[in-house]
Amino acid sequence: MKALDYIRVVLIQSTHPGNIGATARAMANMGVSDLVLVDPADFPSPVATARAAGADHVLDKARVVSTLDEAIADCALVIGSTARLRSIQWPEKTPEEAAAEIGEEFVSQGDAAPIALLFGRESSGMTNGELERCRFLVRIPVEESFSSLNLASAVLVMLYELRKSLVSREIAPVAGGDRLASAEEMRHFYDHLQAFVTRIEFSDGRSSKLHRKMTRLFNRVSMYTQEVKMLRGMFRSVENKLDGKY
Amino acid sequence: MKALDYIRVVLIQSTHPGNIGATARAMANMGVSDLVLVDPADFPSPVATARAAGADHVLDKARVVSTLDEAIADCALVIGSTARLRSIQWPEKTPEEAAAEIGEEFVSQGDAAPIALLFGRESSGMTNGELERCRFLVRIPVEESFSSLNLASAVLVMLYELRKSLVSREIAPVAGGDRLASAEEMRHFYDHLQAFVTRIEFSDGRSSKLHRKMTRLFNRVSMYTQEVKMLRGMFRSVENKLDGKY
Repeated sequence: MKALDYIRVVLIQSTHPGNIGATARAMANMGVSDLVLVDPADFPSPVATARAAGADHVLDKARVVSTLDEAIADCALVIGSTARLRSIQWPEKTPEEAAAEIGEEFVSQGDAAPIALLFGRESSGMTNGELERCRFLVRIPVEESFSSLNLASAVLVMLYELRKSLVSREIAPVAGGDRLASAEEMRHFYDHLQAFVTRIEFSDGRSSKLHRKMTRLFNRVSMYTQEVKMLRGMFRSVENKLDGKY
Repeated sequence: MKALDYIRVVLIQSTHPGNIGATARAMANMGVSDLVLVDPADFPSPVATARAAGADHVLDKARVVSTLDEAIADCALVIGSTARLRSIQWPEKTPEEAAAEIGEEFVSQGDAAPIALLFGRESSGMTNGELERCRFLVRIPVEESFSSLNLASAVLVMLYELRKSLVSREIAPVAGGDRLASAEEMRHFYDHLQAFVTRIEFSDGRSSKLHRKMTRLFNRVSMYTQEVKMLRGMFRSVENKLDGKY
């Protein structure tokens, strides 16, 4: 499979069907076809179809889901896009840097999983909770005094850089290699971590802040399945010890 | 004046006012404001204004002229854009190469003159006569089977590359003031981690392998000082619990 086939565009609660259509067109231009729509306001829509200008193959196989979790469950790497300065600290990259990192990701992955690019609402972008699902954010360098980039334009620029970096790349599955933990495996890891910090009374009830910090830390690192197993094994060691089980 | 102030976007006989508006928006995003419209079908237009999404300063000072000659009279360098294979042979560059050449142009020019980027009709592009006014053509690399790029999208990609090449890069200040942990802090962290895994009997003596894995994991993430403190606090919680200190 080609590297670009592993790229998934995820639009979160888009309000304008025209933007969905223009996104499909930009994807088709750049050779990307995996589109997932999280709770769109209006889809399918003749407006989307008109703006897609013939990119029907992208719209036809677009999946509509109700939560972000569903959209990224099988993804090893989740990247957000942002247009605004954030109050919370989060690693940021340019589209070029992001494309380079995605290229490296394909090298390090044994068995390639989809890579999700998240794009937030036209009006308000992504929530902090959504943001925390991302390893890093991409910021397209724009004029500060006029930074409101059209949604499909942001998709276009991101995919343009990705195409430059990945277009001729084929992904060969590597036998026996470890792979990055999926979003779902990471969710189970966080559940375990949450139970663990409560059990050891490290968390004192204001755990949502701690949980957020932990999520930020471990999302940033992109753990491999073996590493998830190792840390969960460590939690269990402590749990067993506290249970007096040996 | 900034280099980007010398960039002129010339739209030749655009049929859709929406594309003019979207072009103005893309220009404002990228910090370019000199727009010239050669014989547009419909301008000014409320459709253009709506799609400009606030880039009124670009539309307001856009000049409407009747011939390409008027549009480029004062320009030192004229560059065309093309989406299709041409019957006549003409030098072609990628947007990246074009941006580099424009950068060199500014170096070699004593007294800077505007640099024109020509974009042809939505349906039929540029005529051969128009093409011959150009030093070279820019072709945006797209999927061959779906190469019809929206007019404003082509402007956006071209200006995006130009901005990357011509604007001096700015680093956004990081809010919050935390910093990455030093190598020394990380060494103390690893010492603590080593003691911790021994204490909880997670490590069974073959600890150098475990230690190496842990080191790889946490070095990859580049932890901030607050995160190091948080994890070491967690180790201490467990240690205290095992000591019966609570």
